Amino acid sequence: MRFSKLYLKTLKESPKEAEVISHQLLLRAGMIKKLASGIYSYLPLGKITLNKIEKIIREELDNAGCQEILMPVLQPAELWKESGRWLKMGEEMMRMQDRHNRDFVLGPTHEEVITDIIRNDIKSYKDLPINLYQIQTKFRDERRPRFGLMRGREFLMKDAYSFHTSEEDLDREYHNMYKAYERIFTRCGLNFRPVEADSGAIGGSHTHEFHVLAESGEDDILYCNKCDYAANSEKAVSNIELTQNDEAEKELTLIDTKNTSSIEDVAKFLNVDITKTVKAMMFKSILETETKYYMALIRGDYEVNEIKLKNAVNSPVELELITDEEFEKLSITKGYCGALKNISEDIYVVADETIKPMKNMVIGANIKDKHYINANINRDLKINKFYDIRMVKSGEPCPHCDGTLEIARGIEVGQVFKLGTGYAEALGAKYLDKNGKLQVMTMGCYGIGVSRTMASAIEQNYDEYGIIWPVSIAPFIVNIIPANMKNQTQVDLAEKLYKNFSETNIDTIIDDRNERLGFKMKDSDLIGLPIKIVVGKKSDEDIVEIKLRKTGETIEISANEVINKVRELIKTL
Amino acid sequence: MRFSKLYLKTLKESPKEAEVISHQLLLRAGMIKKLASGIYSYLPLGKITLNKIEKIIREELDNAGCQEILMPVLQPAELWKESGRWLKMGEEMMRMQDRHNRDFVLGPTHEEVITDIIRNDIKSYKDLPINLYQIQTKFRDERRPRFGLMRGREFLMKDAYSFHTSEEDLDREYHNMYKAYERIFTRCGLNFRPVEADSGAIGGSHTHEFHVLAESGEDDILYCNKCDYAANSEKAVSNIELTQNDEAEKELTLIDTKNTSSIEDVAKFLNVDITKTVKAMMFKSILETETKYYMALIRGDYEVNEIKLKNAVNSPVELELITDEEFEKLSITKGYCGALKNISEDIYVVADETIKPMKNMVIGANIKDKHYINANINRDLKINKFYDIRMVKSGEPCPHCDGTLEIARGIEVGQVFKLGTGYAEALGAKYLDKNGKLQVMTMGCYGIGVSRTMASAIEQNYDEYGIIWPVSIAPFIVNIIPANMKNQTQVDLAEKLYKNFSETNIDTIIDDRNERLGFKMKDSDLIGLPIKIVVGKKSDEDIVEIKLRKTGETIEISANEVINKVRELIKTL
Repeated sequence: MRFSKLYLKTLKESPKEAEVISHQLLLRAGMIKKLASGIYSYLPLGKITLNKIEKIIREELDNAGCQEILMPVLQPAELWKESGRWLKMGEEMMRMQDRHNRDFVLGPTHEEVITDIIRNDIKSYKDLPINLYQIQTKFRDERRPRFGLMRGREFLMKDAYSFHTSEEDLDREYHNMYKAYERIFTRCGLNFRPVEADSGAIGGSHTHEFHVLAESGEDDILYCNKCDYAANSEKAVSNIELTQNDEAEKELTLIDTKNTSSIEDVAKFLNVDITKTVKAMMFKSILETETKYYMALIRGDYEVNEIKLKNAVNSPVELELITDEEFEKLSITKGYCGALKNISEDIYVVADETIKPMKNMVIGANIKDKHYINANINRDLKINKFYDIRMVKSGEPCPHCDGTLEIARGIEVGQVFKLGTGYAEALGAKYLDKNGKLQVMTMGCYGIGVSRTMASAIEQNYDEYGIIWPVSIAPFIVNIIPANMKNQTQVDLAEKLYKNFSETNIDTIIDDRNERLGFKMKDSDLIGLPIKIVVGKKSDEDIVEIKLRKTGETIEISANEVINKVRELIKTL
Repeated sequence: MRFSKLYLKTLKESPKEAEVISHQLLLRAGMIKKLASGIYSYLPLGKITLNKIEKIIREELDNAGCQEILMPVLQPAELWKESGRWLKMGEEMMRMQDRHNRDFVLGPTHEEVITDIIRNDIKSYKDLPINLYQIQTKFRDERRPRFGLMRGREFLMKDAYSFHTSEEDLDREYHNMYKAYERIFTRCGLNFRPVEADSGAIGGSHTHEFHVLAESGEDDILYCNKCDYAANSEKAVSNIELTQNDEAEKELTLIDTKNTSSIEDVAKFLNVDITKTVKAMMFKSILETETKYYMALIRGDYEVNEIKLKNAVNSPVELELITDEEFEKLSITKGYCGALKNISEDIYVVADETIKPMKNMVIGANIKDKHYINANINRDLKINKFYDIRMVKSGEPCPHCDGTLEIARGIEVGQVFKLGTGYAEALGAKYLDKNGKLQVMTMGCYGIGVSRTMASAIEQNYDEYGIIWPVSIAPFIVNIIPANMKNQTQVDLAEKLYKNFSETNIDTIIDDRNERLGFKMKDSDLIGLPIKIVVGKKSDEDIVEIKLRKTGETIEISANEVINKVRELIKTL
């Protein structure tokens, strides 16, 4: 490719709406263009990188025994009603009606469609297992689309679905896909981490997320500095030691705590350690017409993990905070909640495991500006359940070894998921087993955010000058730049090198534009090409300069040796 | 690939709803699966063929200097209002609203979006010309989706758009794309014909359609048996000789023609040659609130070409037949229309060129059961315009040489189009020319129906046993079939051949299923694989049988020579 022919409009300034670096740089490098909120076109450079990511995914999945298919964007509502998700999905699911007023979904995912295909095609255990994947545009009507390709309304996903005769066979395939994902993200040149995660809304029993590590990541990941353990903060557990407090129970006493605004203030005011205090938070779950109320108790120095709490109370829906009106209705004083024996029967109280060994605690009194001191579990508190509902913090001990958990920010780019039998049951995907008995299939599903992977590669690889693409997904690896377009020797040598590179498998572009060297160098760095070859003053001596985008390293080299040197360098990048 | 692992469910019977052969065979060969009316999933074999077609398209377009992009499915209504197509597109365009009730279109085409990109990016003549393409899912809410992939509601298109500083440069690119299309369809192994076509609803001045020739085609194509001339029936012209009739004008006479029901009957009843008769047909055009009425006159032995008539009256919209009420309102008697001098001023009369030399014609009298004989143009008829509004028939002389036009059925798989300045004008896509003056860009657009190309390849290549894929787009080229899975010599030799073929670039599958030979042969022929290698009884002697799908030819050959022989055969297929 020649820069003179390439459709490319780079921007000096980043558009105001772009908050994160990948969004800024994708726009500035002319790789994407906004059409509407959360909806982008991919311009030539962006499309090349996208194609390279897709190719890596296809190769690794084909090698792992998956088979590619393509399912429609438009999905009839009937299937979603059958699975029960037509109502559940809410406003994030895009819907439309055709000319006959039939309801359709713009596919946010394809569990329903694939299960419909399989239930019609597969009749016998002999046809299982099977793993089918597609790379398809998906739609999600985000309330607040943002961060460019990171959280768009129309985006590219790879989704795969596997069907099995047993949990064991699903385990095998789950591991197979886990390994394929490791190869995919490794080949994309990304620093990533597979982490244990909560199975959430898709349902199912077991899941790992693949996170690209980047400071701008939206998720917190806890990982062990010694072993392989890693989990997102929703799921992370640790091995903190809890010692039973053996104090004698003192008398429950009401204390005025008027001028305190946080649990830290209360502890300071009462001159007790914060580990003696208990915070209480009110949540609710709304399922169809039924609202349930929960109080979560957590030691003052920890935070409640809503996902763990949701699991503790077996809620099928996300929990929400309660309103001021609900506080009043439940006779709970906001800001001074306490799980006293006399609170409403409608409140189910879950206490974190760290509460169990505590004695003589400081708790809210359910009276404005008042706390109790010396509260004790059996004597004073209503607790329906003890459960781990705690956010793990950096520095805590690993649950699997004697290492320490550290915290990092991650961008979720992939997920592998044991779905179990939920969808197969709902949609009737059954097969005849060896004994001729009808059985429900067991399913797995496996996603990769293709466009998001592209953005996350930038979040992890950039500097003040622009993108620094990993070699495997760079739109071009080598950029040959004649320094002075009026110097025929330089131009001729650059063109000769371009011709030679074109005969290799190294994707090469030549910057044959009538522009100054500085301008060309800036464009090259902005769009993130890994290797520049500057053909400058020493062209007379057949000497050119290799410049590495990542390290800034400069290597003078004879034009004859430059291809071999580049091959060598690529291996190290 | 191994048949034992391949996701494949072939059907013995073709589903009832499948009317055309490609639809029947794609379903029976397990290549596609219906999700909803006009909406299909591509299963593994179908997806492989689709990927092969896409690869050919990408390679040829990249070589022709186009650059790939990807534009969104969801397009904001504002752009379509700006171009004026929001209202024009009618019910065939799928629309939806997002959660904020903003209107969106599910892209049936991308002229608006590409022009929006270009008007924002391109400022100077130096950046032109440019040609950008994408392969993207398109949506069209057909009133009656049918014929499987031939007329679906969700389908795959390659669309390209070029931008130029002049008509001449557009001409150059149009030719460039025309040539690229010839290479694409040639590489796909299709017997096709580029034909002149009417520019229709997209607007613009000049267009060619690329038709795959097949008896099941929906379009008639007229082509010269001597030169390159070819046009679809809407556009075709011929060189018929018209001789002025020198008869004296006889007296206009009203005749009772009560028992005649067609113009042929009238001619027979009156004992005149049908070439002395004139048929008249009533049409209308509705543009917003204005309805215009047209009467078309055509010699009795010809048919009116509505598209030519539409062009004759410069109607921006399709013409329609008028209703019984309108006949009454206009005082025209249905079935006995005649362009008499006294008809309503609201009727604009267009007569075909073949009327001009006629004398003493038979025409409808605008009275039930009555015709006039001896009608003459200037004396008796109202004619506003003479124009070629005739359907050309097979056997007429070529307009460009002394050859004869023949008729064939075609399936339109591609179109190249000179759009001109319409969209650029409407959306304000302008650039500064060499003199610093603002100019409107000139556009071309170029489409290929990707999924339709797949279906049309079948319409052209099949027999009673199934599909006969052209080699270049066959899901697999070679199918190695051990005849008897219980014979270890056969299985070993087949596996050895499979291994050897896997090291070549010849896409190969082995049918390692525990099934009878006949069953496997039938499946292979149904899914259309070009070459079977049967490893049978002569395995002891290292001899196998090559069977060609297309010709049925069988070749016995030593296992050692089979790869070279297959390479040789592929060139001839």
